[in-house]
Amino acid sequence: MNKHHYVAIMAGGIGSRFWPMSRTNYPKQFLDILNTGKTLIQWTFDRFAEFIPKENIFVVTSEEYIDIVAEQLPALPTDNILGEPSRKNTAPCIAYISFKLMQKDPQASLIVAPSDHLILDTTAFRKVCLEALSFVNKHNALVTLGIQPTHPNTGYGYIQYEQHAVTDNVFKVKTFTEKPNLELARTFLASGDFLWNAGIFVWQVKNVLAAFEQYLPEMFEVFASEKEKFNTPEEKATLEQVYPQCTNISIDFGIMEKANNVYVIPSSFGWSDLGTWNSAYDNFEKDYLGNAVAGENVMVIDATKCMVHVPDDKLVLLQGLDDFIVVDTKDVLMICQKGREQEIKDYVSEVKRKKGEKYL
Amino acid sequence: MNKHHYVAIMAGGIGSRFWPMSRTNYPKQFLDILNTGKTLIQWTFDRFAEFIPKENIFVVTSEEYIDIVAEQLPALPTDNILGEPSRKNTAPCIAYISFKLMQKDPQASLIVAPSDHLILDTTAFRKVCLEALSFVNKHNALVTLGIQPTHPNTGYGYIQYEQHAVTDNVFKVKTFTEKPNLELARTFLASGDFLWNAGIFVWQVKNVLAAFEQYLPEMFEVFASEKEKFNTPEEKATLEQVYPQCTNISIDFGIMEKANNVYVIPSSFGWSDLGTWNSAYDNFEKDYLGNAVAGENVMVIDATKCMVHVPDDKLVLLQGLDDFIVVDTKDVLMICQKGREQEIKDYVSEVKRKKGEKYL
Repeated sequence: MNKHHYVAIMAGGIGSRFWPMSRTNYPKQFLDILNTGKTLIQWTFDRFAEFIPKENIFVVTSEEYIDIVAEQLPALPTDNILGEPSRKNTAPCIAYISFKLMQKDPQASLIVAPSDHLILDTTAFRKVCLEALSFVNKHNALVTLGIQPTHPNTGYGYIQYEQHAVTDNVFKVKTFTEKPNLELARTFLASGDFLWNAGIFVWQVKNVLAAFEQYLPEMFEVFASEKEKFNTPEEKATLEQVYPQCTNISIDFGIMEKANNVYVIPSSFGWSDLGTWNSAYDNFEKDYLGNAVAGENVMVIDATKCMVHVPDDKLVLLQGLDDFIVVDTKDVLMICQKGREQEIKDYVSEVKRKKGEKYL
Repeated sequence: MNKHHYVAIMAGGIGSRFWPMSRTNYPKQFLDILNTGKTLIQWTFDRFAEFIPKENIFVVTSEEYIDIVAEQLPALPTDNILGEPSRKNTAPCIAYISFKLMQKDPQASLIVAPSDHLILDTTAFRKVCLEALSFVNKHNALVTLGIQPTHPNTGYGYIQYEQHAVTDNVFKVKTFTEKPNLELARTFLASGDFLWNAGIFVWQVKNVLAAFEQYLPEMFEVFASEKEKFNTPEEKATLEQVYPQCTNISIDFGIMEKANNVYVIPSSFGWSDLGTWNSAYDNFEKDYLGNAVAGENVMVIDATKCMVHVPDDKLVLLQGLDDFIVVDTKDVLMICQKGREQEIKDYVSEVKRKKGEKYL
């Protein structure tokens, strides 16, 4: 393993689209949504630990989740769990880990990855990551992994790329697009030069810092003026002073859509962002009636195509439901049509408005 | 109040059609199914306590429910809570209370009533009961209260009666019928000479004992040979010896359908046997979408005509359900179409077969 290769696993999300399973105090990345025996962040860590030294794997999360990360990833050095003082989207998070690594290892190359995605083909994933590392080690390039789309998904952003390869399997990115409507998604798919944006990035730390300096200069300055404090006992206090000065902005919007050294590697490693109950349903083993059932005491009478997630010790009897999501937890029960799951975030807002934080 | 007037409230049922709310160790009669502030047996007791001396009110129940009855009815003398050693349907239960009362008060008149029915018009109910008591005190008559049907219900037995009144509002019964199909129920309703069988009986104790002697002579003999033991310290031991010798048979089938001194008083006092979730639904206040909701934290998005019964502290979010029953308890969740509720008893059998007694 190359000792200059690093990973930053971003684990600060609250997974509100997976409510009521995903809760503010214990969100999706720490759950075993698919009933696989390991939580999503555990799978993510294990995937990287195969080719990145454990001491080079960092988890950036909210301060309130530090204990959960430590508990779920006992093999991770506790110093590598970084707590953000507030939720500020991906750009400040990546600035933080980048300045920290730059102080520590100016030759560092970094993979940035979400903690809560599903990747089925670990071997293909490792191969693509190593390809990307190899490329960025030779070029001033910001690389993103683009997923070969399998269907016209309207929940993902798309990346359009130039058809002429720069080297081997690496292509220059033309544009990043927002989530398309179904018609546009079909056009993207048919055109053959669009990929799903998986939010997995690879670059040399010095190059992404140069991009910050150019495209997010204020954020760069705030961190740069305090950079000597990173990896010292003053890091936490520094961060608490730096973070409030950062804009809430994503790395995609702040840098990737603007920089002209952005490249993509078209990839296929059985990826899903597991962003919604429907994507969980798609990745679940189904019974012969098409039901995806997590829960050891679920009796399905004549329900079909349902996504059911309930505690193992709860007896659940389902009759007559077609195409529903049924999620039961200790204090919340949600029953909603699968086709209406995009409304779950509205339900969560409504719950917050009516009942406060209690059920979030 | 007449000191020879007695009531026997039958409270030994397990209410399996109200599963999973109604549980073997805490059945329907002890629950506030309709969210009224009192349990069904509390309403039943209070109804009678208005015109029957409290010391003359008896509750006949399973031994396992004696403590629950005592807790729910603190005004009832504890000696008046009678435990049956086993479930033997209504005939042995009525034989027991009748022999016991006969020893105590040979002039006793008795109202026998279920503990778990709904009666909305208490005044009308009291009036009919007093009418019936007045009639049976003058005649050797077995009186049943017949409910003027309001719709062709297929869940009730019907009583056909002679159109010529014996006295005032008392009519001779022609036949008892089993639960009809819908077509037959409609014919019954149209004919005008059928009433619902509410299972509420009124008679002098000596006369019902005479009927036992004639129509259930073996059961009569088993009790008669031990009658001196009732109201003594030996009562419990005697009962444990007597009950196993009794046939499991209802008073309707064993006596009412055979005797020729059976009379009915057509009544209207807002009665429902609350036998099923649908009957609970019918008697519930509905929201503007026709949902009957028990539970203080239920958010209905666009569900309609649902019967929802969940714990007050559980947040429940319902979207897209039409005409469903949703019942949630600590350890069981049942979702089933309202039109399929007759299958609930099959589900309960299935649960018993697959999971044992745990969830019953």
